[in-house]
Amino acid sequence: MPIISDHFNISTKGYTDIVDITEHVQGIVSQHQLEQAQALVYVAGSTASITTIEYEPGLLKDLPEVLEKIAPVSKMYHHDDTWHDGNGSAHVRASIIGNSETFPIVKSALMLGPWQQIVLIDFDNKRRTRNVIVQITH
Amino acid sequence: MPIISDHFNISTKGYTDIVDITEHVQGIVSQHQLEQAQALVYVAGSTASITTIEYEPGLLKDLPEVLEKIAPVSKMYHHDDTWHDGNGSAHVRASIIGNSETFPIVKSALMLGPWQQIVLIDFDNKRRTRNVIVQITH
Amino acid sequence: MPIISDHFNISTKGYTDIVDITEHVQGIVSQHQLEQAQALVYVAGSTASITTIEYEPGLLKDLPEVLEKIAPVSKMYHHDDTWHDGNGSAHVRASIIGNSETFPIVKSALMLGPWQQIVLIDFDNKRRTRNVIVQITH
Repeated sequence: MPIISDHFNISTKGYTDIVDITEHVQGIVSQHQLEQAQALVYVAGSTASITTIEYEPGLLKDLPEVLEKIAPVSKMYHHDDTWHDGNGSAHVRASIIGNSETFPIVKSALMLGPWQQIVLIDFDNKRRTRNVIVQITH
Repeated sequence: MPIISDHFNISTKGYTDIVDITEHVQGIVSQHQLEQAQALVYVAGSTASITTIEYEPGLLKDLPEVLEKIAPVSKMYHHDDTWHDGNGSAHVRASIIGNSETFPIVKSALMLGPWQQIVLIDFDNKRRTRNVIVQITH
Repeated sequence: MPIISDHFNISTKGYTDIVDITEHVQGIVSQHQLEQAQALVYVAGSTASITTIEYEPGLLKDLPEVLEKIAPVSKMYHHDDTWHDGNGSAHVRASIIGNSETFPIVKSALMLGPWQQIVLIDFDNKRRTRNVIVQITH
């Protein structure tokens, strides 16, 4: 069986909250002796995404500001005609960014840049607890 | 051989037609006994994408509206100087959204949220038949 | 060991330089006898991305123009309050497009469309040398 599955929970504040999950992912990877491997980092759901960013205070404002221009929270969405839950923007943003990223692993280390972190972004309009799945192929 | 390849065809209407392919993908996955696995869902071509969305009528209008703001169909594209085929917008949208998504599988079930569907989006400006490849790593 | 790792370097001009790396990736894939396999194409760092595009002169202008509308280079970014390096736009663009794509391989051939190339996009505001990792799972 070359695939190992693990997971962890993250509490978010919603509203495009960007949470650094690099340590969580590296912690799972480090439990195994991996010469050449891959880590799929995945969040289920249609209002959250996985991507990477340099996790510094400026960009934590910049990315949400750009996404607000693309899919404003306060825009009228047809999604509200269906559910009236006010999170149409969250759905659209998540469809564009995507639910997962895959990272190469060499000698049990994630191949990230020196100023690059793996992040969970929660676009929903309320606090959530998100389950992040990490699958290691080796 | 830990990789199983399968595929299916989908007819689309083009013009950012969003087609729910979850049943097709789950149907392929269900043919195998999979304890821990992954499904790569992939469409070849430079004017179509794979992503996920809550497949309800409102969002099927919202996502195309947001993409229309980002890369309008009627904008003048330099792509037309090369081919005169009027689908510059389709190419740009596909490059941004991407050709694939990868999904964890546990006990032969795709790890999707309860309101999350896998979709093929066809951005081209005509009807197309798209071949979707599903590769299971296990 | 079902994962083979390889890599190559690419010199870029930065400023959303789009470089066709299809031949490099296919060259690595062709060194192996692969019936059913996958290629993960990945670039580390928070200012570069991997995606696909029809590599023709028009689209090489169109995609940067659309990204310039989404995240203009000359906009004031909070990122500059932290580092004063003027590349906030590069970070935001890379977070949206992502660091990798995964491609099915059948009989040692990448499953690309006839007018589809794999590209590295360097969003940084200077010349860079980028290390692209290709991992083959088979």
